Amino acid sequence: MTRQIKLGAFLPGGGQHVAAWRHPDQPADGATNFEFHKQLALTAERGLFDAYFLADGLAVSFGGGTEGGNAKVAGFEPVTLFSALAPLTKHLGFIATASTSYEEPYNTARKFASLDLISGGRASWNVVTTASEAAARNFNFAEQPPHATRYRRAREHVEVVKKLWDSFEDDAFIRDKESGVFYDTDKMHFADHAGEHFKVNGPLNVPRSPQGHPVIVQAGQSEDGRSLAAATAEVIFTAHQRLDTAQEFYRDIKSRAAAEGRNPDHVLIMPGVSPFVGRTEEEAQEKYERLTSYILEEDGIALLNGLTGGTLDLTGHDLDGPLPPAPPTEGNKSRQVLLRQIADENGFTIRQLYQWVASARGHYTIIGTAGQIADMLQEWFENEAADGFNILPPWLPTSLDDFVDLVIPELQRRGLFRTAYEGRTLRENLGLPIPVNGYAAGRRVAQAAE
Amino acid sequence: MTRQIKLGAFLPGGGQHVAAWRHPDQPADGATNFEFHKQLALTAERGLFDAYFLADGLAVSFGGGTEGGNAKVAGFEPVTLFSALAPLTKHLGFIATASTSYEEPYNTARKFASLDLISGGRASWNVVTTASEAAARNFNFAEQPPHATRYRRAREHVEVVKKLWDSFEDDAFIRDKESGVFYDTDKMHFADHAGEHFKVNGPLNVPRSPQGHPVIVQAGQSEDGRSLAAATAEVIFTAHQRLDTAQEFYRDIKSRAAAEGRNPDHVLIMPGVSPFVGRTEEEAQEKYERLTSYILEEDGIALLNGLTGGTLDLTGHDLDGPLPPAPPTEGNKSRQVLLRQIADENGFTIRQLYQWVASARGHYTIIGTAGQIADMLQEWFENEAADGFNILPPWLPTSLDDFVDLVIPELQRRGLFRTAYEGRTLRENLGLPIPVNGYAAGRRVAQAAE
Repeated sequence: MTRQIKLGAFLPGGGQHVAAWRHPDQPADGATNFEFHKQLALTAERGLFDAYFLADGLAVSFGGGTEGGNAKVAGFEPVTLFSALAPLTKHLGFIATASTSYEEPYNTARKFASLDLISGGRASWNVVTTASEAAARNFNFAEQPPHATRYRRAREHVEVVKKLWDSFEDDAFIRDKESGVFYDTDKMHFADHAGEHFKVNGPLNVPRSPQGHPVIVQAGQSEDGRSLAAATAEVIFTAHQRLDTAQEFYRDIKSRAAAEGRNPDHVLIMPGVSPFVGRTEEEAQEKYERLTSYILEEDGIALLNGLTGGTLDLTGHDLDGPLPPAPPTEGNKSRQVLLRQIADENGFTIRQLYQWVASARGHYTIIGTAGQIADMLQEWFENEAADGFNILPPWLPTSLDDFVDLVIPELQRRGLFRTAYEGRTLRENLGLPIPVNGYAAGRRVAQAAE
Repeated sequence: MTRQIKLGAFLPGGGQHVAAWRHPDQPADGATNFEFHKQLALTAERGLFDAYFLADGLAVSFGGGTEGGNAKVAGFEPVTLFSALAPLTKHLGFIATASTSYEEPYNTARKFASLDLISGGRASWNVVTTASEAAARNFNFAEQPPHATRYRRAREHVEVVKKLWDSFEDDAFIRDKESGVFYDTDKMHFADHAGEHFKVNGPLNVPRSPQGHPVIVQAGQSEDGRSLAAATAEVIFTAHQRLDTAQEFYRDIKSRAAAEGRNPDHVLIMPGVSPFVGRTEEEAQEKYERLTSYILEEDGIALLNGLTGGTLDLTGHDLDGPLPPAPPTEGNKSRQVLLRQIADENGFTIRQLYQWVASARGHYTIIGTAGQIADMLQEWFENEAADGFNILPPWLPTSLDDFVDLVIPELQRRGLFRTAYEGRTLRENLGLPIPVNGYAAGRRVAQAAE
């Protein structure tokens, strides 16, 4: 089969751009409006997107680093939201972000396994560590654990969750009314996990779905993040401003995955792209400038502060001067480096920098016609920079509609994108294999039932 | 307005009775079948039930104490399931059980607040402590904490969750596109909680729903349980075999609630009732005997063992002899006492005891015509034993259909039950007030934003 582009859609109801909610088209209450999320899901499914992707945070984001800025001060927990959207859709996958830092793996495993069953195999977990002092203070900590500790916990968390997802073999349930045998106890397995952060006996009380496991997504860019991603991720969300850095990342992850004994084709690299689509270049530029005009100075400053880990104090700085230096923090390290790179390479002032990152917080922003945008996606896709893309429409629903109505048909004309869903599950659409049950395959030692 | 009976429906997809899944009418895969749960929700809404109620456990139940026995070895996490059912219904409330023992209050608050918003104010939290060694071993413990510790943690957990639910006042969101003011920071509040078990700063990143808070449900019967329920519950689920013990409980809780400064009318007592409904007495009795005939001896023994805390070893005992003595455990204490009481008062053998509790695990089981069942409900309702009932249909969908088609119309003829939903939210249907925001009312000290 011809290799085709895979597409995720980041559709926070409050909009992606820091000032999206001020746009006349955008429902100002979108972040907490279920009917609006339903509309977005149906549009994404009409556009044949592989999945609806949502970020998440475990605190109100005062730093402004969150999509949508203040419009995202409150919203839905993603798994709860996606579960409500699942029966209203048929093919769309759901990638929910959930932190490994402040949740127990049994609870994580359960909610994703439940969503996966309810949706008939369309669930996916975007595994993150939470880099936020505010979140730490919501979970009994005075300050957040160090970066390296968070990543060790993340790796162990994923390991436990995967063990739990294999608690029942696919043919464990006999359900023979005549004999009264409901399940085969030999096909139920105990995780019996005891590690640095977790002791979890199992089994999980949810069976596997038609896709085996929810698809594992990750976005780490740091050394710790790349290592975790290469070991466990099936889809990698990544932020790049240039083809060459995207290629470097793509090749690095594929070779790391191979070194882990994995098939590199089963690790899909999907950079983020924020498109301003116009019928002409001028129209696209006007859309960009109009949205930019809605940014308040204090929101722009909060955005930069939030993205750089909350330590970049811009008070008293000339917004039309250069970005001052700041020490690295225990927060999202790669994002701090990326912002600095964007400022340096473009010679941006503080104001120009926040205007540029306001739509996608460091992901690639492109302003142009459907043809120009398709050219860019095609170039990255055909040159070892991407297996697909996570599209971040700057405001909603208009930028999503624009992409679905203008860019998708162009990609289809070029044979780069599907014209109908290939399968029933997210894995089938992404071309990812169903994970073999580790116990059934004898790769994990089955514990005797007590 | 005339006082009317409130009704919850316990509808585990795998059936309530330990052998339900062996009944020809019951889908054997009901526990993990989303479409079947959808059918049950639609039937409950057709029957004008206030709410769909689901129990929960944080481990595979090997002891057999769970509804449905082995058929409940695996199923859905309740909040995830209810979120999927919410957009498919319009009036039905959703009471999801969630433990205070192994979850963080910020996560509990978030998922229920999200469900409450998504459903337009139809969510409810059945607050439980988890009494299970198997669950403790899924959450880093070698054994479960003592009964008293679990209850102190439960009380603090609920306190934190309620603070978090009040993080934003109802008019905090201004969303003025012109000025760019999204919310009023003076109307956002920090929990700033530091207690024995939890340190939680807040605010929660989800706003209040149209019903203010999800309805708080509890089921504790022990001294600790009654005390917690009187202080915090709005609906109390309780198990009684006789009118007089139900009355004692009813009066005790109402007076405790009054002593806490609460309006006793806003604490609804709803005992569990498991009905075998027949068009004649004989037909009802046949239904009971038929379902009883499906119970395997080992499942009956596991059921008694599970209900008594996992320490009642019946190996080698004559099933047609009396129940042997057993020491009380740190498990569900009131259930242990209740089982003993049922055995003593009825002079039951081991076999007769497990047959009797197989349908409702200690809740009142009634076998009769719609008129006889309505008589019983009416007697309890009119004599200070109940404000409503949680109906536990023994197997599904048939026993639910029977109740909706036969008993509900009889209750309506007597003016004891609604003929249409009164309101949009669960609170409106239950006649419960919207909780005033504690910060807005000045009852809680608002913390300054940082």
